[in-house]
Amino acid sequence: MTTPTPAEAMALAIAASARVHGTTSPNPPVGAVVLDASGRLVGTGATQPPGGPHAEVVALAEAGERARGGTAFVTLEPCAHHGRTPPCTDALLTAGVAKVVFANADPNPKAAGGADVLRAAGVEVEHLPTHVEPLRAWLHYARTGRPHVTWKYAATLDGRTAAADGTSRWISSEQSRAEVHALRTTIDAIVVGTGTVRADDPRLTARGTGVTRQPLRVVVGTSDLPPHAHVLDAEAETLHVRTHDPDVVLGELAKRNVVDVLLEGGPTLAGAFARAGRIDRVLAYVAPKLLGDGPTALRDAGVSTITDAVGLVVEQVSMCGPDVRISAVPTPAH
Amino acid sequence: MTTPTPAEAMALAIAASARVHGTTSPNPPVGAVVLDASGRLVGTGATQPPGGPHAEVVALAEAGERARGGTAFVTLEPCAHHGRTPPCTDALLTAGVAKVVFANADPNPKAAGGADVLRAAGVEVEHLPTHVEPLRAWLHYARTGRPHVTWKYAATLDGRTAAADGTSRWISSEQSRAEVHALRTTIDAIVVGTGTVRADDPRLTARGTGVTRQPLRVVVGTSDLPPHAHVLDAEAETLHVRTHDPDVVLGELAKRNVVDVLLEGGPTLAGAFARAGRIDRVLAYVAPKLLGDGPTALRDAGVSTITDAVGLVVEQVSMCGPDVRISAVPTPAH
Repeated sequence: MTTPTPAEAMALAIAASARVHGTTSPNPPVGAVVLDASGRLVGTGATQPPGGPHAEVVALAEAGERARGGTAFVTLEPCAHHGRTPPCTDALLTAGVAKVVFANADPNPKAAGGADVLRAAGVEVEHLPTHVEPLRAWLHYARTGRPHVTWKYAATLDGRTAAADGTSRWISSEQSRAEVHALRTTIDAIVVGTGTVRADDPRLTARGTGVTRQPLRVVVGTSDLPPHAHVLDAEAETLHVRTHDPDVVLGELAKRNVVDVLLEGGPTLAGAFARAGRIDRVLAYVAPKLLGDGPTALRDAGVSTITDAVGLVVEQVSMCGPDVRISAVPTPAH
Repeated sequence: MTTPTPAEAMALAIAASARVHGTTSPNPPVGAVVLDASGRLVGTGATQPPGGPHAEVVALAEAGERARGGTAFVTLEPCAHHGRTPPCTDALLTAGVAKVVFANADPNPKAAGGADVLRAAGVEVEHLPTHVEPLRAWLHYARTGRPHVTWKYAATLDGRTAAADGTSRWISSEQSRAEVHALRTTIDAIVVGTGTVRADDPRLTARGTGVTRQPLRVVVGTSDLPPHAHVLDAEAETLHVRTHDPDVVLGELAKRNVVDVLLEGGPTLAGAFARAGRIDRVLAYVAPKLLGDGPTALRDAGVSTITDAVGLVVEQVSMCGPDVRISAVPTPAH
């Protein structure tokens, strides 16, 4: 791959962005690569934490003079506005690239227009539509103003999240639990209800090798937290939002620059988010076990008859160790 | 594929058997192909309905003299005993094949020994272990003396089989329902409880183009059936077994030459089969919908704590239209 194809170059840019996923909010985790005039890879970069350089600037710095007459591949349309850093369009023009290829238009009116700025300056600009998983939450946030919510749960094949006696360790496999810990390093906040804190006393931290950063722990509900709850320890910051309204929760989180939320609460909290239409993705770990009794993952979703079911589209099914991992998003009608 | 490889030849034999799956019980749906001495395909056959010729005989008849010095591929070890038809080993010896390759040994002591008979007569015999889906139920039946039970259900991603108001049409997609109708043509009996008959009044017939045969309809439970229930119509035979004991049901069915059972009942009946350890395969159609309330697929499986969960192994996951289809079998410990 000394001279990557456009799809390969964009895949390299996405891979670069995946490595910073979870460290850039409220900025988007963008990735960029620069090819020289003869198509050789000469620079790779990704967005640095807020206040630091954006992906294009990092990739161009690595490329140096070799960027002149070359092509930049970027997962998001380059910004044309002064934020905490100068516009990326300036950096691209100064470096003298002949062409810019981007995977997603910037839905943010304040930052958009980068493509037009570049074109006006004589740079060839191409939109290469590509799904960029690390940008999923940020694009949602930019379009709606609300943090993106992934509702994650683990259940048996017959839909139970615990046995009749309340035991649930472990419903899902070691591999699934490790994957969830990895997922926690890419999101900004984990949300549970006070009921989950009282019942399970979870730590809600990302654990595993190479974990350097913890998401905000958010507990939703009007009851007080037990004084010795793990979520009150020093391992990560915790926010207690005394409400049952998902939109109040998401509003509080948006104020704190939270873009990507992992909802890990019990059935009542999940039901409140479902009722409010605030589940943007369902991530189910289905363990090949049968229990026949015990709690279910979701309650009171505001659906009383089959034709009112919350409709989803399965976007990915894969095995995670012995478990089946299903990722689904609301149907466009929802 | 004028000279198929051994794996290709066996795949052709399996494909031939799939076409007769559901028409041979209590005999196994076997498939066979014959290659001539130079490896060309000269005959294909599958078991005919009880009393008719077995797969080898059909394939050899097509091959005629070209079988001499050739190789027969059979999904099951050829039988060496006189049942309603003469032993297949005789037919293979008379045809003068030089080699026989089989995918599964015959676990039935009465019929087994075919490989030894052939070897003693100077035929080269090879066991090529291969999963043969059409033989799954029969092999179980031959090993245990009990019909094989596939518990099939359709549920939403959150594990509901109906909405809070009882509506369930349709939980699963048109594609999944069509697949279940096709599955019904391959099995011998469909089992439900009296509760399902009273609540849903199902037809329990296989519908669709090319359906020529209906499975036995079996209703389990002590209550009487409503006199105008669809299961009492003339579209298929119906058996009412007045018990709640799965082993009594399976005993009755074994007496009627039923090898392959599709359990489609409600959660109580499924729970009884799970408690008795009489679920040999779980086939779940998971619809990408959320309901939050409503009945679940399984109740009272005899499990009270997580470590006693019925353990399964996922053997296949695939999409069926918009739904996720999960096939799982009990872990060897169960």
